[in-house]
Amino acid sequence: MIMDVVKEITRRAKIIDGQVMSYLDGGDDKKLMMAVRHYPIAGGKRLRPMMAQVVAEAVGGAAEKAVPFASALEIIHNFTLVHDDVMDNDSMRRGRPAVHVLFDVPTAIIAGDALFARAFEIITDTDAPPEHVNRLIRNTARTVWVIAEGQQDDMDMEQIPVEQVSMDDYMAMIYKKTAVLFECAAEGGALIGGGTEEQIARMKDYARLLGMGFQVWDDILALTGDEKQLGKPVGNDIRNGKRTLIVLHALRVMDRNDPRRTKLTRALGNEKATQEEIKDAIDVLHDCGAIEHARKTAQDYAAKAEEQLECLPPSAERDFLSGLIGFAVGRKV
Amino acid sequence: MIMDVVKEITRRAKIIDGQVMSYLDGGDDKKLMMAVRHYPIAGGKRLRPMMAQVVAEAVGGAAEKAVPFASALEIIHNFTLVHDDVMDNDSMRRGRPAVHVLFDVPTAIIAGDALFARAFEIITDTDAPPEHVNRLIRNTARTVWVIAEGQQDDMDMEQIPVEQVSMDDYMAMIYKKTAVLFECAAEGGALIGGGTEEQIARMKDYARLLGMGFQVWDDILALTGDEKQLGKPVGNDIRNGKRTLIVLHALRVMDRNDPRRTKLTRALGNEKATQEEIKDAIDVLHDCGAIEHARKTAQDYAAKAEEQLECLPPSAERDFLSGLIGFAVGRKV
Repeated sequence: MIMDVVKEITRRAKIIDGQVMSYLDGGDDKKLMMAVRHYPIAGGKRLRPMMAQVVAEAVGGAAEKAVPFASALEIIHNFTLVHDDVMDNDSMRRGRPAVHVLFDVPTAIIAGDALFARAFEIITDTDAPPEHVNRLIRNTARTVWVIAEGQQDDMDMEQIPVEQVSMDDYMAMIYKKTAVLFECAAEGGALIGGGTEEQIARMKDYARLLGMGFQVWDDILALTGDEKQLGKPVGNDIRNGKRTLIVLHALRVMDRNDPRRTKLTRALGNEKATQEEIKDAIDVLHDCGAIEHARKTAQDYAAKAEEQLECLPPSAERDFLSGLIGFAVGRKV
Repeated sequence: MIMDVVKEITRRAKIIDGQVMSYLDGGDDKKLMMAVRHYPIAGGKRLRPMMAQVVAEAVGGAAEKAVPFASALEIIHNFTLVHDDVMDNDSMRRGRPAVHVLFDVPTAIIAGDALFARAFEIITDTDAPPEHVNRLIRNTARTVWVIAEGQQDDMDMEQIPVEQVSMDDYMAMIYKKTAVLFECAAEGGALIGGGTEEQIARMKDYARLLGMGFQVWDDILALTGDEKQLGKPVGNDIRNGKRTLIVLHALRVMDRNDPRRTKLTRALGNEKATQEEIKDAIDVLHDCGAIEHARKTAQDYAAKAEEQLECLPPSAERDFLSGLIGFAVGRKV
């Protein structure tokens, strides 16, 4: 089953690749265009545009009508990646140098802005009643605002002692950074596809729940996944001191006298931690139940996402939306 | 006459201040909101939103209908200032520390993105037929793309020998960086005000011509203005090696054997140039006719901008639009 979903994701992603890139042509400034195209051309899972298109179909519309909106969301996703990599000082992305490394920081800032601008231009291309197009733009603009807040929250949270960060803070932050764009994709897809207001609301919920599960699963994978498949060292999040749900839960369940807690805290945010120490910390996260707790959290989101699909008539697209949930919280990469 | 215009600009700017700030309320993240409001709250001439509103009135519409669009343009202008200051490493703006100095670079990047997002949300508030709103959004999104290109062109041009930069390159760059946003303001104002397609096209031309004149005049002021009124050292552009129309013209009219050319080139882009050397370079720019050439260029733009106003019926607003031209290419600050 999951293999079929992966196959279908791959098939659809290839088509979306071409759609997205067709919107990133032209432009006077050659260097800027190279910077603008650098991440989008490197591929990706294309889950956000895919969701917009499949939801449009699942409510009875035509996928083609959702193409501009879907492409715009992928472009917005890439714009946030370009700027986030500058802010987080990440030098690699999708196995290639980050935009600000390949060019420079100013060019990366402009390339992000240009992608952002292009995305909104593209949405106005949508073949839908103009009042629907306005609603798409309004939702998308609000979504980008929330994403910006999420990135700021994330950075602010890194500055305060880990004990002061609650699991709720973390969930609110990943809603803003990740789930809200999924929400926007499914809501917009349902609107473009001619869904009822009830379906639009349910699809939005579906996507939010899936997005939350996706991010929690991402955090699990970063600790338990296969290094080769992930393309980054397992446990990097520990070394970088990332306050994921897993870490926050672990620090809550182990009291100050628990020797396991020390094993975790000495590796957390310690750039010089040895591979052994990182491994010990991950073992503690398993041992104290934090990874299991995260897995259960992701699966709860998945189950609730599944319920939302009941508003849809049976179809191959509905089945695929269900398959996407399984992928989001079951994938290996 | 110009005093009356300045008075009217000041009166209108105060009203616009309140409108713009009303759109920058709310938001979950306190720090982000402070960063977002930092430039807009510091005031400014508000020429772009003013132009949108006055043009809407001049074609027979109501200024209030243009308020969301006008505010959005001022917010976009501020977003570009926040990011430009990061890229150009400028630490002061409007007599206060730049956003990236008061906070940090990541916060400035996010604040710019957030302002950008809010601007597009605001435009969807416009009380106009939805197809007009779509057109406003499309034009504005394209405008931001062009502004991004302009900033990139500006930075790229700084990397090549000054002899390889043509005056046409410079004019194309200031069109993108400055005039295009004026264009967008007037075009949008005319559309919202219910102007004819002819009036919309003329108002766009008016604003582009005024914007070009405005920027050329800005370059003149930076060399000849009053230091106190300007709020920055006269001749800073020389020290920073800025390739303005004035400098490019001067290097074209003085050949390599001209001793005046040496006086200019030894100061141009020389951070250690003395006040005396800067003064000598400015004298050369006067002496070789480069400043006079720029003044004439600005006045030519002004005259052509004036012609565009003929499509409007006589009104106080038309007179004010005419007054704005005089301000753009006659102001002291």
